[in-house]
Amino acid sequence: MLIARVVGSAVSTIKADKLSARKLLVVQEATVRNELLDRTPFVAVDAVGAGEGELVLVAVGSGGRFTALTDQAPADATIVGILDSLEVDGIDTFNKS
Amino acid sequence: MLIARVVGSAVSTIKADKLSARKLLVVQEATVRNELLDRTPFVAVDAVGAGEGELVLVAVGSGGRFTALTDQAPADATIVGILDSLEVDGIDTFNKS
Amino acid sequence: MLIARVVGSAVSTIKADKLSARKLLVVQEATVRNELLDRTPFVAVDAVGAGEGELVLVAVGSGGRFTALTDQAPADATIVGILDSLEVDGIDTFNKS
Amino acid sequence: MLIARVVGSAVSTIKADKLSARKLLVVQEATVRNELLDRTPFVAVDAVGAGEGELVLVAVGSGGRFTALTDQAPADATIVGILDSLEVDGIDTFNKS
Amino acid sequence: MLIARVVGSAVSTIKADKLSARKLLVVQEATVRNELLDRTPFVAVDAVGAGEGELVLVAVGSGGRFTALTDQAPADATIVGILDSLEVDGIDTFNKS
Repeated sequence: MLIARVVGSAVSTIKADKLSARKLLVVQEATVRNELLDRTPFVAVDAVGAGEGELVLVAVGSGGRFTALTDQAPADATIVGILDSLEVDGIDTFNKS
Repeated sequence: MLIARVVGSAVSTIKADKLSARKLLVVQEATVRNELLDRTPFVAVDAVGAGEGELVLVAVGSGGRFTALTDQAPADATIVGILDSLEVDGIDTFNKS
Repeated sequence: MLIARVVGSAVSTIKADKLSARKLLVVQEATVRNELLDRTPFVAVDAVGAGEGELVLVAVGSGGRFTALTDQAPADATIVGILDSLEVDGIDTFNKS
Repeated sequence: MLIARVVGSAVSTIKADKLSARKLLVVQEATVRNELLDRTPFVAVDAVGAGEGELVLVAVGSGGRFTALTDQAPADATIVGILDSLEVDGIDTFNKS
Repeated sequence: MLIARVVGSAVSTIKADKLSARKLLVVQEATVRNELLDRTPFVAVDAVGAGEGELVLVAVGSGGRFTALTDQAPADATIVGILDSLEVDGIDTFNKS
């Protein structure tokens, strides 16, 4: 899963049926230190109640559809987890609290 | 989903059966401010009645086939929503009206 | 779908069963003006009777398998349409005839 | 499959149901000589009991879900093997022991 | 499918069940002239009995699992054909014999 930060939200009234009532968040890839990478932001369906500013895990492709909220949804990216912490090489690179 | 702008359309008479009578639009990735990115335009099936110039959400891969119009279609990109607005870091970066 | 030009063909005698008797064409991504892009050519299964030099639509990933010729085939790219014309920003950027 | 090194781990309490009790590891792509590449680390589900510092095979996309631990999981990357050795051009480029 | 050259092999004792007894080869993308490209080598399951040095077709993603050897395997890349020849713009760019 991609490590990404929730940076915003999207509103779309006219959309495919199975996306109705889904929360669409704007996410941008980030480093293990929660620094934004110079990548194009994209839109993911929120399956876990994530909020802006949180560091999350985004499953892209078919994997993101194995949640109750995204089953059979025409989506290619889903927020599947809110990160509490990341550890790399024995160092805590990110800690939410 | 990718944020993209509809920049044109494609006509293909000889095509796979399940693409018949589908509207094929040319899309190009864009920023949250509706600025075109320097990416190669590609063709997406329109599942929501999008028009040229509109900022849309494009689902790539298998996700794009979970609409009535693209079910079982040999397509890898579908326009699944028309964007009304985008908000990033508390700022409205895009507003359709 | 990617916009690509058919630039050649591939011959493979020893191949997975379900690729037997499939026409394998070499394609290279192109602009909406039918100019080749500096991308690595790859091989796609032809599902529409495309010929060399033609500008085509290539469906990558699982989408390309929703044709009679590629159903259940171990392929990741299929030519699903021959382009007649492309229009971008109100201008005809490509016209086959 | 990608050749990657396990460089850390991730903790996520609030996550999609089918990711519960799965070990989430941070991986980074590597060369056949076990040198880290300058690529963004990402998170993979561990299906084989991999440990930090090990060179592993990561299956991305739907392929990674064909293990007992990842079946139907909303994941897009799975560690599916621990590498013992790699040989390229007749030379042992990596040997675990 | 990607055009790639088999450059080596991988050994993994601890791996997902359905990868057991599968030949894992190291491949690297190549041009239509069988020149290696500056891309990171990766590992593919061999479904056709390919040997080192051969130019092959690699199906990535779900497509690679439509062979007897890779059905239901946690793999994201499969060698699905051994190339005999490639022709581009009327010129034989590669000929195996």
